[in-house]
Amino acid sequence: MSVGLASLPGMDLDVTAATRTLAQAAADLVRLLPGRVLDPVLSGTVLEATPDGVLLAGTDRERSIRLSRGARTHSEGQLLVPARPLAETLRNIDSPEVRLVVEGRKLALRTPNARFALPLLDLPAHPAVREAPPRVGALDTALLPLAAVAASTASRDDALPVFTGVHVRQRGERLVLVGTDRFRMTVASLPWRPEVDELDVLVPANLLAELAKQADGAEVVLHVDADRVGMSWPSAEVSSTVLDAPFPSEARHLADAFDCTVDVAAPELAGAVRRVTPFAGAQGTVLLEVGDAEVRVRAADQQFGEAEEAVKATTSGDRFTTAYQPRYLADALQAFGAQAVHIGLRSGTRRSTVITGAEPDPSDAELHYVLMPKRS
Amino acid sequence: MSVGLASLPGMDLDVTAATRTLAQAAADLVRLLPGRVLDPVLSGTVLEATPDGVLLAGTDRERSIRLSRGARTHSEGQLLVPARPLAETLRNIDSPEVRLVVEGRKLALRTPNARFALPLLDLPAHPAVREAPPRVGALDTALLPLAAVAASTASRDDALPVFTGVHVRQRGERLVLVGTDRFRMTVASLPWRPEVDELDVLVPANLLAELAKQADGAEVVLHVDADRVGMSWPSAEVSSTVLDAPFPSEARHLADAFDCTVDVAAPELAGAVRRVTPFAGAQGTVLLEVGDAEVRVRAADQQFGEAEEAVKATTSGDRFTTAYQPRYLADALQAFGAQAVHIGLRSGTRRSTVITGAEPDPSDAELHYVLMPKRS
Repeated sequence: MSVGLASLPGMDLDVTAATRTLAQAAADLVRLLPGRVLDPVLSGTVLEATPDGVLLAGTDRERSIRLSRGARTHSEGQLLVPARPLAETLRNIDSPEVRLVVEGRKLALRTPNARFALPLLDLPAHPAVREAPPRVGALDTALLPLAAVAASTASRDDALPVFTGVHVRQRGERLVLVGTDRFRMTVASLPWRPEVDELDVLVPANLLAELAKQADGAEVVLHVDADRVGMSWPSAEVSSTVLDAPFPSEARHLADAFDCTVDVAAPELAGAVRRVTPFAGAQGTVLLEVGDAEVRVRAADQQFGEAEEAVKATTSGDRFTTAYQPRYLADALQAFGAQAVHIGLRSGTRRSTVITGAEPDPSDAELHYVLMPKRS
Repeated sequence: MSVGLASLPGMDLDVTAATRTLAQAAADLVRLLPGRVLDPVLSGTVLEATPDGVLLAGTDRERSIRLSRGARTHSEGQLLVPARPLAETLRNIDSPEVRLVVEGRKLALRTPNARFALPLLDLPAHPAVREAPPRVGALDTALLPLAAVAASTASRDDALPVFTGVHVRQRGERLVLVGTDRFRMTVASLPWRPEVDELDVLVPANLLAELAKQADGAEVVLHVDADRVGMSWPSAEVSSTVLDAPFPSEARHLADAFDCTVDVAAPELAGAVRRVTPFAGAQGTVLLEVGDAEVRVRAADQQFGEAEEAVKATTSGDRFTTAYQPRYLADALQAFGAQAVHIGLRSGTRRSTVITGAEPDPSDAELHYVLMPKRS
């Protein structure tokens, strides 16, 4: 260790950790930080060794991420290293354990046969990684995939920021999440354990989707104040500034007035949509034609040819045909996995189709997937 | 079936086949045909139903492909359909069997619940799919992965056509294949069963690589005449025009004079190269430093940091350091899989390194992988 640096506070970190655990945390942090930041110091991971283990933290000034992992700390300390090189180096190491130790102006990653040394960045120049706002309630981690479905129907177009958010509200003992890009909308209603009386916040959808993948343990805690929203579980705490914009209401789509309903197995209908889609042409249109004990999936394109597949279904109400963007229809069916679904259709253009699970969900969660049909 | 078309010869095809078998053949044919052809008729698959099954054929005027598969022919016939839509439609079908039948101006692909109809192309305008030239010998299909390694070191740059070929020559009971892009070279020597006295031909490397993946059964037959080269096995016959250019000699690289040799496990050295490569910088340089009972793999980059890993090895001769393009070194080691390798090094720049298997191959095949070191 360089003697010249020993006087700087926090530069004498020395810790041994399970490589895979640390590699996973370093990769999670990279995925939670935006790809490009103008200030190079923000591309760093703050690494802190404490008596309890290591903390990996980062921020782009909007988001703040703090991930803790178990480790054997030989010497406490704190430093800043480039986030992506750290993640990539750890990912490639196949020794079960790795030792991280400051050597001169470098962080060395040591295994029995190898040494990888990353340059230290300027820790004092790094902004504080903010803690999450106060907690407002908790929900089962197992419900997060439905939150991810709501996030999946938000827009990725930053030109309309409101649609890049998921609208999260409390309705008694339920948490209602709504995501829409104006062509489709999902409404997920999840049981949860509130700790406040009222909650209405617009959460960045891409952050919600990534957290749904990373969350670990039995429950996740939601944190909200006027400016920030966060999620935490025992080994992680992530927060972000909230989006601030009026969000459209989902009520008119859920009003229970359909001209026709179809009960069908989601994977069978999804398979038919997949097979017919190559025939959907440049416009990308797949037709659902409701029959007596089946729904027919059709597409035709002058160059590619034509396709039609019949899927067994229970139908009631009027008989008519609606047109969809194939990918939206495929995404919607995929959200229901292997379930049977109940599809409510409305005749006429610009009148929404609503897909729900045909059976009550054992976790007491509810998903409404709303699609706007196309003009066929 | 359209009455108006019944008088056209070969338009009444009707055949039932195993979907997966047919889908595989249709996909194989697409992979063997170049991506873009100017004449739309060349983007078609000739489909022929005979009493024995179906034949799928195609050509871009240079290459000719004929793939045969078992099927139940209800009515013989021949037609031309777009190759990629046929492959994509078959790939998506999950019924075990599919019926192909001409309906009007379309080829219908029918399953119990679905019908997919592809437009027919103008069969009389399609050029003949040529048969392969005479056979010149045969080799075990199991040896083709080594032929693919020779193809992998050929160039993909059409500006120097000679380096896009694999030089195939007969040396008694051996077939010697050489591929080089000028920075690396492989020499594969394979036992084979010759049927001619002399053989010296330049085979397009990308065709050889694709055929090595597709070949089926115990042996493949090589076909050569002055203009064309081909390969066949019971269910396929593929041929192409040969490349015509003088090819560099491999002899000087194989002359057995090394300043130093290293015996090492290929996967261990490959792992070290993989871990060190992120540190190899914009120039992409990895160093091999020969030690007493190890070889050290090193890289350093001002921004990314530095890395060094030691790999146990048996070494003899001089001690020095050589520099390589990391990807080339990784490719070379990967060609030897889990084997122990013998690395012959020459000191000084522009003097080649040669990697061979340390143990004789049970199939009696030999591979020499030649790398040109970089200036470090």
